[in-house]
Amino acid sequence: MKMNILPYSRKAHYYETDQMGVIHHANYIRWFEEARVHFLEQIGFPYERVEKMGITLAVLDLSCEYKAPVLFGDTVHVQVELKICSHSRMTICYTITDSASGELRTIGETQHFFSRKEDARPVSLKRTIPELYDLFCSLIGSTQ
Amino acid sequence: MKMNILPYSRKAHYYETDQMGVIHHANYIRWFEEARVHFLEQIGFPYERVEKMGITLAVLDLSCEYKAPVLFGDTVHVQVELKICSHSRMTICYTITDSASGELRTIGETQHFFSRKEDARPVSLKRTIPELYDLFCSLIGSTQ
Amino acid sequence: MKMNILPYSRKAHYYETDQMGVIHHANYIRWFEEARVHFLEQIGFPYERVEKMGITLAVLDLSCEYKAPVLFGDTVHVQVELKICSHSRMTICYTITDSASGELRTIGETQHFFSRKEDARPVSLKRTIPELYDLFCSLIGSTQ
Amino acid sequence: MKMNILPYSRKAHYYETDQMGVIHHANYIRWFEEARVHFLEQIGFPYERVEKMGITLAVLDLSCEYKAPVLFGDTVHVQVELKICSHSRMTICYTITDSASGELRTIGETQHFFSRKEDARPVSLKRTIPELYDLFCSLIGSTQ
Repeated sequence: MKMNILPYSRKAHYYETDQMGVIHHANYIRWFEEARVHFLEQIGFPYERVEKMGITLAVLDLSCEYKAPVLFGDTVHVQVELKICSHSRMTICYTITDSASGELRTIGETQHFFSRKEDARPVSLKRTIPELYDLFCSLIGSTQ
Repeated sequence: MKMNILPYSRKAHYYETDQMGVIHHANYIRWFEEARVHFLEQIGFPYERVEKMGITLAVLDLSCEYKAPVLFGDTVHVQVELKICSHSRMTICYTITDSASGELRTIGETQHFFSRKEDARPVSLKRTIPELYDLFCSLIGSTQ
Repeated sequence: MKMNILPYSRKAHYYETDQMGVIHHANYIRWFEEARVHFLEQIGFPYERVEKMGITLAVLDLSCEYKAPVLFGDTVHVQVELKICSHSRMTICYTITDSASGELRTIGETQHFFSRKEDARPVSLKRTIPELYDLFCSLIGSTQ
Repeated sequence: MKMNILPYSRKAHYYETDQMGVIHHANYIRWFEEARVHFLEQIGFPYERVEKMGITLAVLDLSCEYKAPVLFGDTVHVQVELKICSHSRMTICYTITDSASGELRTIGETQHFFSRKEDARPVSLKRTIPELYDLFCSLIGSTQ
């Protein structure tokens, strides 16, 4: 499927640095979330809307590899790629590069399960929001 | 009123530092909250219980004065003092000192209004949870 | 002085919410910093450059008034106004409004002192970076 | 080697929750760091001291698996286990359980490389701080 998905860029904030003089490693997990939310917005299913439809994308597990530090004031680009989507789960990969140089900074992955907002029980996305399930399937492997 | 309220102490975490090599100033607002929650627990009304009774202590305004920096690894003591309590609002003061030296680090103040959890509307604490209102009144001016 | 200063806007992130369903109050202090850094960049003195010139804008005190909550997914506009600038200190005011409705969300103020990066001692900005001091003075009262 | 290492416990803070009503997943990465710092302190090599000796334990990669949510007010126990230690790297595993019930909440792993503080270049811990290297080796596999 062809979609015009705008890339996600953001500046590294001062309060995200630590006394090593670089962005603290825990912040990248938050940047993944920002990029994921931006991705959902770009494909026409803002996370607010998904939650209102009664579904949350609860995080099952994640991993992150730090290749090179990001400094205060750097602008980074976070590329999102939907890797896998089944009835119950999805996997998203992230590549953070420096916007100016294009150099690699961090890569990561999050796995989510589709859960009912009211009681956190697992649900089938295919049955609950079939149009979103179909959209996810059509986007597997395409990158911003 | 006599109450045996244990003081609140905590270590400054590495992820709370910034590239100036000190604890970032926004974190103290979080420490105030930690100390406030600890205070409620010590007086027998854990915030979880207050929320379950349908009331939140929403923050109306706050202020903070930075006297001297806290460093990673320092242990600080956060003293809480209930300053004012009316039917609708309360004011809490905080004094952060270094646990080892007793030296002053930061002082601050938060003002809260009592609001109904379901719709965030202001309520009278005196009418909603009278025993907590009476307890607050009895604690005005006493410090940990 | 006439300057074309772009306003600072940003989305409220999911990880900035708390279980009350609104943006946690401590995050606004971070948004003030983001807007301050953006302001310095817009006037041609990025904070990275100020720090490289050996000066930090250490926070002396701050205050914040919460008028109405910000929700996940809202876009806010943070207006910065330089209120006071002396040889040794400066005061900045912040007004956070909802980008869509223009409604007021939060107002705040931070006071800073100019300090030498290497030892955190107070310095005269007028003597250390006179062109920045003059620029600040010329911007007093103008808003983005 | 026998060592009397105190376990690391801490309460989940209100500001760590998100609008799903649980602790936001990025915070666990910070809890791992808190537990790691506590572990170093318990074995007699506080991280402040390691940094002063010119070495940082920079994070190379990490992973985290979410088994069950932690709620505001819960007290968790974070168990640390040193898994691998070579001249240049170490791997630490974390198990977060609920203090009251003992039930599993989260497991995770961080891999670090030993780097020179001044220029972030990799160094041999065995050559730089041999007594810490020996201590780490002696602690492989023992848990708090």
